[in-house]
Amino acid sequence: MKIVEYPKRDEWAKLLRRPVMDTKFLERTVANILADVRGGGDEALRHCSRQFDPYPVTEFEVTEEEFAEAEASVATELKEAIAAAKANIAKFHAVVLDDGQPIETMPGVRCWKRTLPIEKVGLYVPAGSAPLFSTVLMLAIPAAIAGCGEVIMCSPPNAEGKIDPATLYAARLCGVRRIFKIGGAQAIGAMAYGTATVPAVYKIFGPGNQFVTEAKLQVMRAGVAIDMPAGPSEVAVFADDSCIPEFVAADLLSQAEHGPDSQVILVSDSRKVIDEAIAEVKLQLENLPRKDVASRAIENSKAILVDSIQTGVAILNEYAAEHLILAVRDAEDVANQITNAGSVFIGNFSCESAGDYASGTNHTLPTGGAARAFSGVSTASFTKAITYQRLDAEGIKNLAPVVETMAAAEGLEAHRFAAAVRRQSVESK
Amino acid sequence: MKIVEYPKRDEWAKLLRRPVMDTKFLERTVANILADVRGGGDEALRHCSRQFDPYPVTEFEVTEEEFAEAEASVATELKEAIAAAKANIAKFHAVVLDDGQPIETMPGVRCWKRTLPIEKVGLYVPAGSAPLFSTVLMLAIPAAIAGCGEVIMCSPPNAEGKIDPATLYAARLCGVRRIFKIGGAQAIGAMAYGTATVPAVYKIFGPGNQFVTEAKLQVMRAGVAIDMPAGPSEVAVFADDSCIPEFVAADLLSQAEHGPDSQVILVSDSRKVIDEAIAEVKLQLENLPRKDVASRAIENSKAILVDSIQTGVAILNEYAAEHLILAVRDAEDVANQITNAGSVFIGNFSCESAGDYASGTNHTLPTGGAARAFSGVSTASFTKAITYQRLDAEGIKNLAPVVETMAAAEGLEAHRFAAAVRRQSVESK
Repeated sequence: MKIVEYPKRDEWAKLLRRPVMDTKFLERTVANILADVRGGGDEALRHCSRQFDPYPVTEFEVTEEEFAEAEASVATELKEAIAAAKANIAKFHAVVLDDGQPIETMPGVRCWKRTLPIEKVGLYVPAGSAPLFSTVLMLAIPAAIAGCGEVIMCSPPNAEGKIDPATLYAARLCGVRRIFKIGGAQAIGAMAYGTATVPAVYKIFGPGNQFVTEAKLQVMRAGVAIDMPAGPSEVAVFADDSCIPEFVAADLLSQAEHGPDSQVILVSDSRKVIDEAIAEVKLQLENLPRKDVASRAIENSKAILVDSIQTGVAILNEYAAEHLILAVRDAEDVANQITNAGSVFIGNFSCESAGDYASGTNHTLPTGGAARAFSGVSTASFTKAITYQRLDAEGIKNLAPVVETMAAAEGLEAHRFAAAVRRQSVESK
Repeated sequence: MKIVEYPKRDEWAKLLRRPVMDTKFLERTVANILADVRGGGDEALRHCSRQFDPYPVTEFEVTEEEFAEAEASVATELKEAIAAAKANIAKFHAVVLDDGQPIETMPGVRCWKRTLPIEKVGLYVPAGSAPLFSTVLMLAIPAAIAGCGEVIMCSPPNAEGKIDPATLYAARLCGVRRIFKIGGAQAIGAMAYGTATVPAVYKIFGPGNQFVTEAKLQVMRAGVAIDMPAGPSEVAVFADDSCIPEFVAADLLSQAEHGPDSQVILVSDSRKVIDEAIAEVKLQLENLPRKDVASRAIENSKAILVDSIQTGVAILNEYAAEHLILAVRDAEDVANQITNAGSVFIGNFSCESAGDYASGTNHTLPTGGAARAFSGVSTASFTKAITYQRLDAEGIKNLAPVVETMAAAEGLEAHRFAAAVRRQSVESK
């Protein structure tokens, strides 16, 4: 970990900068895959599978037999844990849909809105270095609560041409009926354009590697919505001398074990805390099966010493971490000063992994500073709203003069006339 | 207008397909402009202005003198119309921010969320064929209501190197302090990356031509959010024999005058209505200053005869129009059956131009079928939410076993340990 002491305000931007990749090659590769899938359908998907997957899949849809097998092979203890997590997530994601009453903006002009589920959604569940069935819960539960009619899922096949049993079990438990063994950019293409086997959807959710993320951005050109552009995962820990360095180290490492490109930042107003946390990191690293991956992420990470809690808050708001842990005194007060973050973990007992799995909040969160403008996935992410307006005779009499004046000023005569002809028909009665 | 009678269900998709452009050239051109702006800042913007604008702008920011001039030159009648529109839009966009109470998902595990304004937003206001000050109202009013701290605006300069006075007047009225005379992809680049003159923002809003839209999609790679990918504007009118063909024609033409690529669709269960509306279109076309543009859009548009109101609703839900006008009997009942549309105009007195300017709803709406998954701009578009969780000693005792089991099953040992070490510290007391 690189320790940076009291960085000046004008050095923050550089200090907090995330690594920027050259995406030219990525863009071209993904564009080619998407064009293939769009033109070639299932046959292109089979070709991709031979090229990229550890097992060349020819029949993509998971069968009822495979679901049954999966259900039988998941341990009872894990089933119970999944059920507990599901209950918490469902509680936090419950929504009372209230579109309010129509608003009479002018006498005779009524406006209102109606929030509706998105009819067809696609979930992408990665399975690169580890099977991530927790992502199934985070996406399928709000989709079910929102009432999306058609929820499909894609996940890459493993070396046996299968999908991890816990992933299949969690998906069925949360109401996903159709799952396809397709990974990478080709999965995003299949769900965006549709093939003979995979139905096209209106919005695509889920994390993934850089190919998946790039593909999600590119299919937006076809009018498909995406949850957010998700990059490498990251955590910032804000710790003062009320923290427990052993816990801080454990949180830094939970992030670091995700991959060598994970971003880990420690901010503290105490050099002692930084030194103790770094010592603990070294100790705990020894026991990690993913020691290599985590060490590399830790090497690239930074510990920033600040002169006060205020400065720490300011630097963290500029960074806009995906996960932010507040292991400081009066943590809830500090939490209220946070303006940019994906999800915040308050106090010594709130580890990131609590939110990753089961506290109830969503773990699909904005990375790379996107928390400045994006929210994490919620039930609202699976809905869209339609606005309505109804003018009666009084309404058109009141509103038409406004519309006519503005349309004339914009030089849009047909717009003006559409209001004027209605007003005149009312006035002539 | 091409009349299509009783199309079969399996012909709908083809019939409703929007024109697809080859975007390869567009993508490359925009990528080059964005790279120039990112690398060259203001100097690159000056170069773009010499290349693309009708006036080579060298100083981009609108001065106080220009604002004062604009205010003096806008007619009182237009000022009053803008004030009336602003009042209606503000009424409909008012929000009662209610993030609810924290939810105890398990004893000792509290989760909540907090909705906050996006701190820095950029508004793009096009000014191609007509100055569109109405777009200023539609973007700046919800930005102000949301409480965004920094709201900047870009709009292309006219042949005198100025921005239309009504646009400047409306912007100041709605709280926009800083406006830059920059148009096209380069404006999006400037707001995404920042230059010496233009501050970088976190989210970019506003319609624009295909260069602007493509630029918005590309800057998402830099973690910048956008409102939606907006394409050519479109209207669908659903009319039965209770409609007034003169009004229907006026609505079709209001859309058609936007540009030759505007999409116009008429759906009816009466051939007589279709014939009368088309005859009216021909009549009204003669009086339009933008007759050429509107004629071309009308030529490419379709009138679809359906066998029933039910079929009409189904075909319109598949189309997902940006604007949908319901000139049918029991229009409010029909409105409740609409599942995909941007904004719906109910009954004979509700013209599209009412919503375009002043009814209160937003006119920045999803096009090209994106209404299946996107909502129009609302005050919520200018906010994002942070989630929070706080576990106490009881909470970690209850939740840790769930987290430990799930993390172990995902092979993430550091995640498991972060929960376990906290649980053990509590249990050992």
